[in-house]
Amino acid sequence: MSSREDLYPSRQLDRPVWLERQDPVVYRDDLEAAPIAPELIAQFERDGYMVLPELFSPEEVAVLRAELNRLRQDEKTLASDEAVREPESGALRSVFEIHKSNALFARVARDARIAEVARFILGGDIYVHQSRMNFKPGFTGKEFYWHSDFETWHVEDGLPRMRTLSCSILLTDNDSNNGPLMLVPGSHRHYVSCVGETPANHYQQSLRKQEFGVPDNNSMSELVSRYGIDTATGPAGSVLFFDCNTMHGSNSNITPAARSNLFFVYNQVENALQDPYCSQAPRPSFIADRGPVTPLDIAPQTYL
Amino acid sequence: MSSREDLYPSRQLDRPVWLERQDPVVYRDDLEAAPIAPELIAQFERDGYMVLPELFSPEEVAVLRAELNRLRQDEKTLASDEAVREPESGALRSVFEIHKSNALFARVARDARIAEVARFILGGDIYVHQSRMNFKPGFTGKEFYWHSDFETWHVEDGLPRMRTLSCSILLTDNDSNNGPLMLVPGSHRHYVSCVGETPANHYQQSLRKQEFGVPDNNSMSELVSRYGIDTATGPAGSVLFFDCNTMHGSNSNITPAARSNLFFVYNQVENALQDPYCSQAPRPSFIADRGPVTPLDIAPQTYL
Repeated sequence: MSSREDLYPSRQLDRPVWLERQDPVVYRDDLEAAPIAPELIAQFERDGYMVLPELFSPEEVAVLRAELNRLRQDEKTLASDEAVREPESGALRSVFEIHKSNALFARVARDARIAEVARFILGGDIYVHQSRMNFKPGFTGKEFYWHSDFETWHVEDGLPRMRTLSCSILLTDNDSNNGPLMLVPGSHRHYVSCVGETPANHYQQSLRKQEFGVPDNNSMSELVSRYGIDTATGPAGSVLFFDCNTMHGSNSNITPAARSNLFFVYNQVENALQDPYCSQAPRPSFIADRGPVTPLDIAPQTYL
Repeated sequence: MSSREDLYPSRQLDRPVWLERQDPVVYRDDLEAAPIAPELIAQFERDGYMVLPELFSPEEVAVLRAELNRLRQDEKTLASDEAVREPESGALRSVFEIHKSNALFARVARDARIAEVARFILGGDIYVHQSRMNFKPGFTGKEFYWHSDFETWHVEDGLPRMRTLSCSILLTDNDSNNGPLMLVPGSHRHYVSCVGETPANHYQQSLRKQEFGVPDNNSMSELVSRYGIDTATGPAGSVLFFDCNTMHGSNSNITPAARSNLFFVYNQVENALQDPYCSQAPRPSFIADRGPVTPLDIAPQTYL
């Protein structure tokens, strides 16, 4: 590991450092060939995210929610390692690797409406690096602090380059009050290295409450001062795509309106995981697919 | 206490009950005589709150913020009972009774721009039932759960009727992302009694984290389903007035933008405190003025 070049070092210094992004955001130049409007791809490149409103119909959302609600009451699911709970209340927060454990969600991961967009942006064949279904309950939903996914995926999982994006299918309406995802547009152009060594088995804590791999206050203030904060809101069925290095987080949710989504992280096949860029063992494969990877079999899907 | 009529019983039954409000919201009918636009008073009556944008100038806000920042670093203030801290971080959250301990804030409490509005709405002479300066820090600001102030003031302080309102002078910009106050418009028409007896010395906990005197989930869902949720946002210098029985709360704040405000609760002099409507001793007078009350000497104020 020592001889390997680390383009994005983090958690190694006692002060934060801003590094320029070394990788493209959109890997293709022929935007006119994109499966969605070229303006949207340009927006993704500029801001580091985009929302496609109501990409899934209310009827499709109903099918997906029914399966999600079935799973969240399924005892085998609840008892599995893949189920992650809220730090205080113990309520179910996420179930990981749903594209392997669940036939319906495996098809969603391959749905051309989302996966072809990811394949275009990432410039080639992709696979699912991580998947999960997320719940943010009403009344007691907790905040999730600012972070760049790439920072963690790079340091703890060994993701070498920024050629990865997340796709969140909103299964509930998201408005500005029920703890929507906040993003800093343009933050994906900067890599803010974090301070502090990674502790062993950090993932068991970090999935619930992130304490390492988070930006320092000065860097966050500077990012927000430059770029502001936007929120990903929209009716159920809308889909948020965001770059692996876009700074994001969410406030708590005391409103009665729970939030849930399906979450798929796509990685380009040439960017498969290596050893972690820290001295710890890699996280379990249900959080980060360690391969061997095979290109996703993308195809149109129907759910009704 | 047992022979006294309790128009708004709460924390006495094992199930929540919705009672109709027995009191006016606006105590005067001659809206044309109001010190602000009659439409605003009508809005207050309908929604249970109103925002007067930029009632204080940026220069005035600067003066008030300077004094607030001085006080929050003042060791005597920090060591006083009137200083209340965040439950986890220990950061200063509020300082109470600032209209008595601080000459500048005493003048703000008497400022005709706000106090005449309160006197009009409440239909007669008023006094300061409670005052405080509030901080919601950036990055780590915690949520404050839904509640009606009146429920607590009635049960724990012995405030007999709804003839009381709060006035919050925003000293920082409030937007939808930095944990603004959320209100349920129209909720002030309903009195949602709460379940669970009041424990002794509840106030020491409840000022930090409310666990009793909060509405049940079904009632909150019903209120929001009927009326929705609005947020009190605006630039620094704006002033929020809200009725004592308007259901409100706030989410956490992970953004870098701290929030602070000056908070004055005005009560009509004929509505002075009686014994609490529970079996506990009343809360300390720095939280709820137990009299004897004298009418506030309202007058124009200048700060520059």
